Amino acid sequence: MSLIEQFHARQKKMRAYSYALQIMGWDSNTEAPKEAFPFRAEMQSILSGESFKLATDKDYLTLLETLLEQKESLDELDYKQVKKAHKDLLKILKIPSDDFMAYQKHLALSQRTWEEAKANNDYDAFKPALAKTIEMQKKFVGYRVKDEEPYNVLLDDFEEGMTMETYDAFFKAIKEELVPFVKTIIETKKTKPAFIDKHYPKAGQKAFVDYLNEVFEYDLNRGVLKESVHPFTWNTHTKDVRYTVRYLEDFVFSSIFAAVHELGHALYEMQVDESLDGTNLKNGASMGIHESQSRFYENVIGRSKAFWKCHYAKLQSLFPENLNDVSLDEFVLGINWVESSFIRVEADELTYPLHILIRYEMERAIFNEGVDLETLPTLWNQKVKHYLGLDVEHDSDGLLQDVHWSFGAFGYFPTYALGSAYAAQIYDTMREALDLDALCEHNQMGEVNRWLKEQIHQYGSTKTPEEIILDVCGEPFDVAYYIRYLKEKYTALYLT
Amino acid sequence: MSLIEQFHARQKKMRAYSYALQIMGWDSNTEAPKEAFPFRAEMQSILSGESFKLATDKDYLTLLETLLEQKESLDELDYKQVKKAHKDLLKILKIPSDDFMAYQKHLALSQRTWEEAKANNDYDAFKPALAKTIEMQKKFVGYRVKDEEPYNVLLDDFEEGMTMETYDAFFKAIKEELVPFVKTIIETKKTKPAFIDKHYPKAGQKAFVDYLNEVFEYDLNRGVLKESVHPFTWNTHTKDVRYTVRYLEDFVFSSIFAAVHELGHALYEMQVDESLDGTNLKNGASMGIHESQSRFYENVIGRSKAFWKCHYAKLQSLFPENLNDVSLDEFVLGINWVESSFIRVEADELTYPLHILIRYEMERAIFNEGVDLETLPTLWNQKVKHYLGLDVEHDSDGLLQDVHWSFGAFGYFPTYALGSAYAAQIYDTMREALDLDALCEHNQMGEVNRWLKEQIHQYGSTKTPEEIILDVCGEPFDVAYYIRYLKEKYTALYLT
Repeated sequence: MSLIEQFHARQKKMRAYSYALQIMGWDSNTEAPKEAFPFRAEMQSILSGESFKLATDKDYLTLLETLLEQKESLDELDYKQVKKAHKDLLKILKIPSDDFMAYQKHLALSQRTWEEAKANNDYDAFKPALAKTIEMQKKFVGYRVKDEEPYNVLLDDFEEGMTMETYDAFFKAIKEELVPFVKTIIETKKTKPAFIDKHYPKAGQKAFVDYLNEVFEYDLNRGVLKESVHPFTWNTHTKDVRYTVRYLEDFVFSSIFAAVHELGHALYEMQVDESLDGTNLKNGASMGIHESQSRFYENVIGRSKAFWKCHYAKLQSLFPENLNDVSLDEFVLGINWVESSFIRVEADELTYPLHILIRYEMERAIFNEGVDLETLPTLWNQKVKHYLGLDVEHDSDGLLQDVHWSFGAFGYFPTYALGSAYAAQIYDTMREALDLDALCEHNQMGEVNRWLKEQIHQYGSTKTPEEIILDVCGEPFDVAYYIRYLKEKYTALYLT
Repeated sequence: MSLIEQFHARQKKMRAYSYALQIMGWDSNTEAPKEAFPFRAEMQSILSGESFKLATDKDYLTLLETLLEQKESLDELDYKQVKKAHKDLLKILKIPSDDFMAYQKHLALSQRTWEEAKANNDYDAFKPALAKTIEMQKKFVGYRVKDEEPYNVLLDDFEEGMTMETYDAFFKAIKEELVPFVKTIIETKKTKPAFIDKHYPKAGQKAFVDYLNEVFEYDLNRGVLKESVHPFTWNTHTKDVRYTVRYLEDFVFSSIFAAVHELGHALYEMQVDESLDGTNLKNGASMGIHESQSRFYENVIGRSKAFWKCHYAKLQSLFPENLNDVSLDEFVLGINWVESSFIRVEADELTYPLHILIRYEMERAIFNEGVDLETLPTLWNQKVKHYLGLDVEHDSDGLLQDVHWSFGAFGYFPTYALGSAYAAQIYDTMREALDLDALCEHNQMGEVNRWLKEQIHQYGSTKTPEEIILDVCGEPFDVAYYIRYLKEKYTALYLT
């Protein structure tokens, strides 16, 4: 076997282990019985160990290094795969395996500790675990990179190319432009439409999500729709891209827009070029670009008046008691209702980036300003007061609300807001090519899918986020599009 | 690590691979999207290969042989595990791995060929694949055992201890006692109750199966109920035992009794002693003993009048249009309706063993009497005529109907009838200890579960089928109980 054939064979074997672990994950998140947990955990840890061994053995590193030295002999796609494999390997290889195993063990415990701490509103119970996670994260970054700010390394892990410098500029715009704008919107004191909080039986919600699958041309021969506690998208290759929803009878628009959000992720994965299926470039380009697609489908399309011009009658027919005397305009205002709130995952499109701003500043303080962990709740609450005007009374609605830190995911949050901003910039370009309102009104989502496939999806992760934005929009990422998009949309809804 | 610790570690690792492959199988049989097939097949074959390597490497054989030589130093449970592992290993180890891989590949093709042949009613299309399967099976047996009839080896593979001699005696009783009795029953020419073939909407069937889960105390914290094309039970350990049903709206009793049948398998696996979970003895004792449990629940309990005295009102409440003017006696006759039919899986309890008799004689002819494969359909059809009085017109309703031969499972069928016969003998003993009718009438299935756990289930496969029957019934297996059970039951229903 040639070296590149050896590389492909090794990748394929590693993929088989990932596939097994992914299927186990899907099972455990959607239906595995409660008591199956300990046995499954043991089986998973054995297979993870096997997979880790395979991914980190010395021969493999030598193979990758040799291939990179022979760069000229590789075609472009092979080179990109080898480069990515090498980068992924270095992330784990430089960490002593004892440390790595200890950290995995710590994280499993940390998540349980966090769950309990959140349930009991008890930050002190979580603090030691959090302190250890942060300490180990810093240590790991130290193994991997010299002379770089730890938080920059973490930011790059979640979104290649991003640094505190770029995010600082991004969040500065949010702070300066959006924070006062949100205040203005909230002060209009419109009346919150009552239909939002009514009771919507599950059967009707399910029927509507089935309908949405058709609207967005989600192919059930290549996908599965299922229920789970937290909605998510799951995929192993373009022919198996699944997503989940949960049906909240007293919070119907959370269910519906979570479905559209996941559909955005799922359509992205389904539309990656098939030729990438057997490679490590088969997934979307980055967290931020992925989130740009989910939020584009959810917010730009899913919450637009043009979209509901076409589909509101269907929803009314499923819930006539709740919706028959609600006008389309009132409906569109309702699904874009803006209010300050404590919980990120329940926040509306406009206040959402403020929640992310808070988290970014917190993480920056933790990693770069050496803030005392003792003071985190106070710091958090000050920021919520400052940006959202609310007084946090319970840490469980404050800095304990999100799972991310409990599994060590620092640097992840900013990609959520970045995704929305990418989406706004892409949307600006898309409108030059497509009459999006007309496509929405005439139920031609396939056209939108195809444009996004052509421009973004097909490339999987053969392009960096920067390359995607540059290629699609003809200029680098610019937060101004996001600010303008939000101001225009919410001015039209609230201030005219 | 001591040798026995090495053994346990190796077993655990092998279990992790089985677990992964099992979860993939569950996924693919219950929900994986259609187009996911080729990629999954590739991933499965890689992991199967890894698992096979692990199961067959020389060190492992040496380890097992050394442990067996030191038998005295092992406790009984360890010894049984090592012995079973050694026996399992020899089954595959003596087959040259090229032959083994070629056979696996052939079987995958053979199943597809069979599917098409069945759909097209074209035995000739399947014949070459069948001939090759038989040839390879004979060859493999030759590798494994010298001086033994091939069919005996296969029979023992599916039910330890069984031979043509024992099965010949078994089927002789069926031929001599049951064949004429079935004729008498069918000639009574009772009127077939019309409710059997009515339309029963799926929602009501689902509600009833959920109800059955409660009745039989199937624990959903340790199980999952789901739909699939063919009902099956699936388990990895006592805390994760799942089963599937399919809801046929025009064939409701097929759905309901298939559910009770699978519940029987599932309860068995759930009630194995927890201490066996981490061992290769964690599953039921044998195919035959397993089938005895599923058929006991399905036929002895599920089709009894005492059971429906308690539950018929519930079923009527779900399907009032179909059942409100059907009396309990008429209902019980209906769910025990006897008629000659072509298809094994749709056969009633009384004619079922005749279908198995036919298959046993066919397999015996193939392996021991060197019958010309050209003549198989004729031979099959003669037997159907002789035992069931029917003229087979299409091979798809004849010898092409079952999947088993397409994947090389010769020697499997007889365990189905054997299971029913075990069940009758166990039932005879159980009635000395329990007032089964009273328990059925008072909805106390938990008592039945507990008795079976105590007597059979807890032991997993630490006992052989022979030991189980001897320990439970105080005497060896005797087909007379089965004949008597069937005659008494159907005489009461049809001839009095």
